[in-house]
Amino acid sequence: MRNDAAACIAVDWGTTNRRIYRLAADGALLDRHRDGHGIARMTRGDYPAAIVAIRAEDAGAPVILAGMAGSSRGWHEVAYVAAPATIADLAAGAWRGTGENVTILPGVAAAPDAAPDVMRGEEVQILGAIAAGLAPADALFCQPGTHSKWIRTADAAIASFRTAMAGETFGLLRRHSVLSEMLQAEPVAGAAFDDGVARGVEDRDLLGALFSVRAGVLLGRLARHDAASFASGVLIGADVASGVATGESVHLVADAKLGAFYARAIGLRGGTVIAIDSEAAFVAGVNRIREAMA
Amino acid sequence: MRNDAAACIAVDWGTTNRRIYRLAADGALLDRHRDGHGIARMTRGDYPAAIVAIRAEDAGAPVILAGMAGSSRGWHEVAYVAAPATIADLAAGAWRGTGENVTILPGVAAAPDAAPDVMRGEEVQILGAIAAGLAPADALFCQPGTHSKWIRTADAAIASFRTAMAGETFGLLRRHSVLSEMLQAEPVAGAAFDDGVARGVEDRDLLGALFSVRAGVLLGRLARHDAASFASGVLIGADVASGVATGESVHLVADAKLGAFYARAIGLRGGTVIAIDSEAAFVAGVNRIREAMA
Repeated sequence: MRNDAAACIAVDWGTTNRRIYRLAADGALLDRHRDGHGIARMTRGDYPAAIVAIRAEDAGAPVILAGMAGSSRGWHEVAYVAAPATIADLAAGAWRGTGENVTILPGVAAAPDAAPDVMRGEEVQILGAIAAGLAPADALFCQPGTHSKWIRTADAAIASFRTAMAGETFGLLRRHSVLSEMLQAEPVAGAAFDDGVARGVEDRDLLGALFSVRAGVLLGRLARHDAASFASGVLIGADVASGVATGESVHLVADAKLGAFYARAIGLRGGTVIAIDSEAAFVAGVNRIREAMA
Repeated sequence: MRNDAAACIAVDWGTTNRRIYRLAADGALLDRHRDGHGIARMTRGDYPAAIVAIRAEDAGAPVILAGMAGSSRGWHEVAYVAAPATIADLAAGAWRGTGENVTILPGVAAAPDAAPDVMRGEEVQILGAIAAGLAPADALFCQPGTHSKWIRTADAAIASFRTAMAGETFGLLRRHSVLSEMLQAEPVAGAAFDDGVARGVEDRDLLGALFSVRAGVLLGRLARHDAASFASGVLIGADVASGVATGESVHLVADAKLGAFYARAIGLRGGTVIAIDSEAAFVAGVNRIREAMA
């Protein structure tokens, strides 16, 4: 079935995955597509042909790229705008130099007086969620993943944020560490996960808690099939403990699977979870940025 | 030059390395040998021939094995003795069943009411250091490495301990992570290391501090050639923060290179370092265990 022609195509271009959204003139989502053509699989010279393919059905439609396409490893490096960053700041920092009606959005860097941190892509979803009324203008957001993001907004601006190597560390331990053979099971959001969260939250000794996975199995105090769930809990617990204080509300922007683990850990930490539709947030963010650039 | 025949040969058999000590009848060290024949390179069937080679010049001398030779991945699994563990407990838990005049010492497990933890080999050095008068009977010890050990003794017994995946985590990050290309330099115990220690000690957010290595380099706030030193400082700082309280004395059992990093971090944490000669400690420990087994 042929959709209506798009007035704009927005791409959330990550390191591993790519999400393509075709938008109508009024900003409504016509359709979306997800694939594995992240920037890690692209060379700089691949982008012009990729853009032609992306707008195959929408000749001439403007294309807006968010995420890693603007990184040093992407198509064209677009400088970060510094927090606090609003929709207007993202629009002002966008790069429109390709001559192909392609706009590449900037990422956001932490304020100069904060610990160094960077994001590319998450800011569109977060500010879009606020624009769409999915979250208040002053809120705490969590986007779990390979590198999880915890983002605080104030007056509808990205105010401060923290990135944690949570998912990547689990992958490193599972594939390459002394714990590897113990971590092959798929983590389950049950009692062993909860025990791991408690350990990760409470003693703040991540390096010690991880070794206790091995010791627990050797001593018969942790079932081998529970080790992956416990280790996942330790890492997510450590992440959550640094991300949210007891009693806070967290706006969770996540896929269902990983979101369930984070929601459970945030609840154990004493936080309240509000789930955000990440695609609706992204589309709202792009529409607001388009308005600001017009 | 031919040494005197040994009255006993003691082996500290680790996962990666092996240290062989030939001892005189009075316990004096005749000579020592270190090589890369850790248990990771051995199958169970390799041990008898290895023992023959070890006592080639000392026919019939008793051989005492400490460390991973008694692990499930070693020659013969010897059950852990539970903390609190003394020299007499190690002697009582030793296994002498090979019929080849070989004794395999047990490891130590954490007390049943503590978080699960295990050691194999370190206990001989720690209790030996106390026996040799190198440390008091109530002390805090640190043995940094792939898996660092922090051990508290009371009344000349291993009372409690904690193992941290410090060195292994640095190796994982350096070889396999998104930080890999930034971490290829050799860490230096200088200002960048100190900054990392401060970060690792202070905010207890290891997963966040590690990502800030990448963000710091991307934002030009951390020199690329300082990244490995900073990351090493973050990990050692996190380890030290969980291992020692401000004002405590730490008996450091380490080789010179890694010991220098830990001594610096412990000093920054407000601790006092007392260096222990690990070989003298091991020999003293073996001699006391032999006496207790006699």
